[in-house]
Amino acid sequence: MPVSREIHLVARPDGMPTPDNFQLVETQVPDAGDGQVLVENLYMSVDPAMRPRLTAGQALNEAMTGGALGRVVQSKHPDFAVGDLVSNRMGFREFFVSDGKGLTRLSPADGLPLTVHMHALGGTGFTAYGGLLHIGQLKDGEQVFVSTAAGAVGSVAAQIAKIKGCYVVGSTGSEDKAAWLRDEVGLDAVIDYKAQPIRKALEAATPKGLDVYFDNVGGDHLEAALRRMNTLGRIPVCGFISGYNSGHSPVSNLSNIIYARVMLRGFVATDFMHLYGDFQRDMAGWLRDGKVKYQETIMEGIAAAPAALIGLMQGKNSGKMLVRLAA
Amino acid sequence: MPVSREIHLVARPDGMPTPDNFQLVETQVPDAGDGQVLVENLYMSVDPAMRPRLTAGQALNEAMTGGALGRVVQSKHPDFAVGDLVSNRMGFREFFVSDGKGLTRLSPADGLPLTVHMHALGGTGFTAYGGLLHIGQLKDGEQVFVSTAAGAVGSVAAQIAKIKGCYVVGSTGSEDKAAWLRDEVGLDAVIDYKAQPIRKALEAATPKGLDVYFDNVGGDHLEAALRRMNTLGRIPVCGFISGYNSGHSPVSNLSNIIYARVMLRGFVATDFMHLYGDFQRDMAGWLRDGKVKYQETIMEGIAAAPAALIGLMQGKNSGKMLVRLAA
Repeated sequence: MPVSREIHLVARPDGMPTPDNFQLVETQVPDAGDGQVLVENLYMSVDPAMRPRLTAGQALNEAMTGGALGRVVQSKHPDFAVGDLVSNRMGFREFFVSDGKGLTRLSPADGLPLTVHMHALGGTGFTAYGGLLHIGQLKDGEQVFVSTAAGAVGSVAAQIAKIKGCYVVGSTGSEDKAAWLRDEVGLDAVIDYKAQPIRKALEAATPKGLDVYFDNVGGDHLEAALRRMNTLGRIPVCGFISGYNSGHSPVSNLSNIIYARVMLRGFVATDFMHLYGDFQRDMAGWLRDGKVKYQETIMEGIAAAPAALIGLMQGKNSGKMLVRLAA
Repeated sequence: MPVSREIHLVARPDGMPTPDNFQLVETQVPDAGDGQVLVENLYMSVDPAMRPRLTAGQALNEAMTGGALGRVVQSKHPDFAVGDLVSNRMGFREFFVSDGKGLTRLSPADGLPLTVHMHALGGTGFTAYGGLLHIGQLKDGEQVFVSTAAGAVGSVAAQIAKIKGCYVVGSTGSEDKAAWLRDEVGLDAVIDYKAQPIRKALEAATPKGLDVYFDNVGGDHLEAALRRMNTLGRIPVCGFISGYNSGHSPVSNLSNIIYARVMLRGFVATDFMHLYGDFQRDMAGWLRDGKVKYQETIMEGIAAAPAALIGLMQGKNSGKMLVRLAA
């Protein structure tokens, strides 16, 4: 009967979340009963999409949830053995008991660190893959813009576009990240949107316009992209981080989608689960070949989870933000 | 060698167009040479999409263009005979000479007035048909909202949705038009957006949310609809009349497309020309059976064309706005 620590939401943030919106709570987790497993989480994911749930969706004074990767430490369930690795949606806690629903047994990819299953080879990578290829209908050699291109989803989307022979522009919010995108990832143009006005910079960086804009930001980035869209362009809309904390990020030139006959489409990864096998095969190969590079920011221990989420909102991460919960 | 009168744009409007932006000009049109026809226009179309061209696209001090229906009055072209009816893009003038490019010979539909080829059975009807069924992927029995539902495109879209067994809400800007939609067309709910706030009225009118919003307006209508979209909803974007004269109609809740995974797609009728045969067959039948009703506002004579365009922008038309150029 282990002691588990977990993060509760105790007050809803007004704008940017602050540490006192959260509380670290110690709880007793029962042993696994018949048909159950006890899981110890090794890593948990910290994602931009967690922010809107703080405003609505996440109950107060309960443990938060999110993607995590754990190890089965007790099993009375026929489908799971002690030692099995399981991806789960029970982040923000160290231990939990499960009847197996919502657990997916993970076969670690050969020759790759376990953490890639939390980003490039996991949900964020799959979001980028399906968002770009399925929702965005990317064709080889097109003109592509990816916002927050140094982020967990954006960096994978930008690199898949490069693998497909596209001209790729990425935006990011610091010179460090811009340097990584330019020098390590090899994007064709990189915009530091804190140093240059996005509208002018994007215009200068896209002499042939844009066929696909992979949108993680909304707001001013979307406005800038709408001015550059080519006929029959596509905008897969993955996130609207610009509006998560401020509440509003009005877009004033949406009428451009008529003249250029542009499609915008919001999506989540479950919209294209039929591509998951293709994704795992392609992405494991690209990671092994070094064609998809990644960065991780790993914070230590459950108590750091609120700071990790706030830091993500402030752009303090490089690449995927993770919290290590156990060795 | 007939004298033709035509409308020139002589100054770009700043906001709402005014009569002194336009000039009526008399010109000599040559007789048809070898391989040419001389066409006398009978009707010309006045469309919301003409407004953005006044700001950019339409040259100053030249005849404007637009959809028209004419009759061949001289022919030295093997494919056209005197008396042939031809749809053309040479509106805003009484006569013109053509080498046949851009002319489509029209076979008038039996038992229907000629003018239906200018709206329900022409480009505007086809825009509604393809926009709703192809771009909007309408399914029988869905929840549908159509803005400017008494307009040329909107009224056809709303009635096709009714024919497909959908629950249909329409918005319009006057009590007269609202009464027509309620009493003649038989929509399930009608919103007079000048009498009620669109957001509250749409919420009350859509207890089951919205699967498809056929958008002719943008701005506040689009914001109101985004709040009501069901999962995997579709928004074919046909027009943004709210922004044509004011320049801006910001949309502040576009992030809703992520949570509900909504698609917005701008389009023009040439995106689905492969459906034109189906459309003509379906629509001629619906018109003959009285399943698609229409209204026309017909102004008389080329000199009235600027007033017709300004009146359209001010919502003074009922249904399709046309100008009769000859009997």
